[in-house]
Amino acid sequence: MSGDPILAIDAMGGDDAPAVVIEGLARFCRRRDDVAFHLHGDEAKVSAALRDAPEVATRSEIIHADGSVRMDEKPSQALRTARGTSMWNAIEAVKEGTADAAVSAGNTGALMAMSMLRLRKMRGVHRPGMTAFWPTVNGVSVILDVGANLEADASQLVTFAIMGEAFARALMGIENPTVGILNIGSEETKGHDEVREAAAILSAGEFGMNYVGFIEGDDISMGAVDVVVTDGFTGNVAIKTAEGTARMFTHFLRNAFSSGPIAKLGALAVANGMSEMRDKLNPSNSNGAVLLGLNGIVVKAHGGSEPDGYANAVNVAMNLVGGHYLEGVADGLARLTDREKPAAE
Amino acid sequence: MSGDPILAIDAMGGDDAPAVVIEGLARFCRRRDDVAFHLHGDEAKVSAALRDAPEVATRSEIIHADGSVRMDEKPSQALRTARGTSMWNAIEAVKEGTADAAVSAGNTGALMAMSMLRLRKMRGVHRPGMTAFWPTVNGVSVILDVGANLEADASQLVTFAIMGEAFARALMGIENPTVGILNIGSEETKGHDEVREAAAILSAGEFGMNYVGFIEGDDISMGAVDVVVTDGFTGNVAIKTAEGTARMFTHFLRNAFSSGPIAKLGALAVANGMSEMRDKLNPSNSNGAVLLGLNGIVVKAHGGSEPDGYANAVNVAMNLVGGHYLEGVADGLARLTDREKPAAE
Repeated sequence: MSGDPILAIDAMGGDDAPAVVIEGLARFCRRRDDVAFHLHGDEAKVSAALRDAPEVATRSEIIHADGSVRMDEKPSQALRTARGTSMWNAIEAVKEGTADAAVSAGNTGALMAMSMLRLRKMRGVHRPGMTAFWPTVNGVSVILDVGANLEADASQLVTFAIMGEAFARALMGIENPTVGILNIGSEETKGHDEVREAAAILSAGEFGMNYVGFIEGDDISMGAVDVVVTDGFTGNVAIKTAEGTARMFTHFLRNAFSSGPIAKLGALAVANGMSEMRDKLNPSNSNGAVLLGLNGIVVKAHGGSEPDGYANAVNVAMNLVGGHYLEGVADGLARLTDREKPAAE
Repeated sequence: MSGDPILAIDAMGGDDAPAVVIEGLARFCRRRDDVAFHLHGDEAKVSAALRDAPEVATRSEIIHADGSVRMDEKPSQALRTARGTSMWNAIEAVKEGTADAAVSAGNTGALMAMSMLRLRKMRGVHRPGMTAFWPTVNGVSVILDVGANLEADASQLVTFAIMGEAFARALMGIENPTVGILNIGSEETKGHDEVREAAAILSAGEFGMNYVGFIEGDDISMGAVDVVVTDGFTGNVAIKTAEGTARMFTHFLRNAFSSGPIAKLGALAVANGMSEMRDKLNPSNSNGAVLLGLNGIVVKAHGGSEPDGYANAVNVAMNLVGGHYLEGVADGLARLTDREKPAAE
């Protein structure tokens, strides 16, 4: 157990913390046991929650923190009073190297702000990018940026591609993840300057990346690429639009299945197939957003997480640690930096 | 019949023209008969197609055109050889006032370029906006721009709001359509300058518009507003993302319903409910995109239209004519123009 990765857990982050957090860790432990947890939070509350989860307790050390960040606090406000909170201490542990990654279901804005402040951007990264998972017909894809920034110039889009590729490789074990830039047409002449310039850089092939070109909105759910690169405004609208559309379908399905006694029997008959579908589209399975581009790994679990969702976010953190994600990104960024200033040397 | 609206039909536009076009008109005639058609196209082919559609023939006049625009022609290329094609003549008829609106299932780019060239922008419009219909849990909404432009500044977004509101009123018969600006958060402080400035202008209430504020991607399919205002890049990505997500759901549903003999029986039992759902989400029902902001009405039917889809595009044209859409927009734009230069006068 001594060589196992150590995760710094913000045990007080999220709507039902620490109960949901500990239950999530317990579910993760049923999948893997090569991990140790540092549980940052209120000692009394955390140890009470641990009583029902001996499999977590044996792998955990509680590190007391007096305060916690409220879910509705503004990032700027949270930053002022952040020092010593469970969230702050978890991030600090990553910075100090006493943990390999941090996981929090707490206030997203505060988590991003603190992570940027304490972990700093990697060399070569102008703006970090927020990832999200996107269920597709043939599995799951990664999209970034989904809202860390409002805009992205060509060089930022290229950085997102590099980080997203390393992320997908570490996380999904794909040797050469396919990468596409989201655009409003697939021809090279389409789109605004930023996407066309980024495409030209990636097409040149210097990064040894499996760049496939432009993709359109309808290609994402079809699983056309493993990594979808876009600016934070477009990415955020796209993923929320997909969520809304999925919700609409669920609404219509529920109506169809309850439209009469025969339909209700029919619903029972297709229940197996439907539960497979629900499983594939279950948000828990795509839980765990990551702010890419920092000197350290911080995974955000959804605030209202189900324990399964939290377990999945923990899994994301573990795979990034084990998949040598940070080294992969540093590698790609070094090639980008070399490219950007050969003439000056 | 003498006072009925006259539609200029590009009978040669679309993948299976003129057959699908005439069949579409026939289906429209089963719904309404207060219309006359000017069928622009190859006289021999069009009259051959009319032989099977007497209900269309009695309301039609064929206006011979020698050429037609190919579906794969670039707009710039099409413009050079456009004069005298069925598409050109249909638009020209709107310009000359011999028809009240034009409908074409032909090459979208060429149709937009020709419409802009011949009909010109309305006074007060810097950039026309392309609309699309969006099926929602409680009906259908309108979104614009979905790709006529790549970007939109605050004043263009306000223009889209004015045009979209008049469009929804004319088309759906809603007295005070609700209008929202697509953003990545609902707070006033969120989003880039363009959306925040546009929101400030619309919130001031000078247009007497039912502006409800920012909406997010997941609000669209929930039917949060009747009119979704956004720039062409974001709008195009959003609507295609929704289409892709819908296709993914259909894929999973098909699998669920064919996963075994019991599931297949179940599928039969819910067939009624499912067909209602399919009907609600049927692309034919939301066919008919319009380039708003020109001095005239030109409706684009999907190129590979089913006859029902074409009939719906014709219905859109008729409702815009009957709903006094152009007058409504002119009204709103006049208020915007007044607002923009009161100090100078």
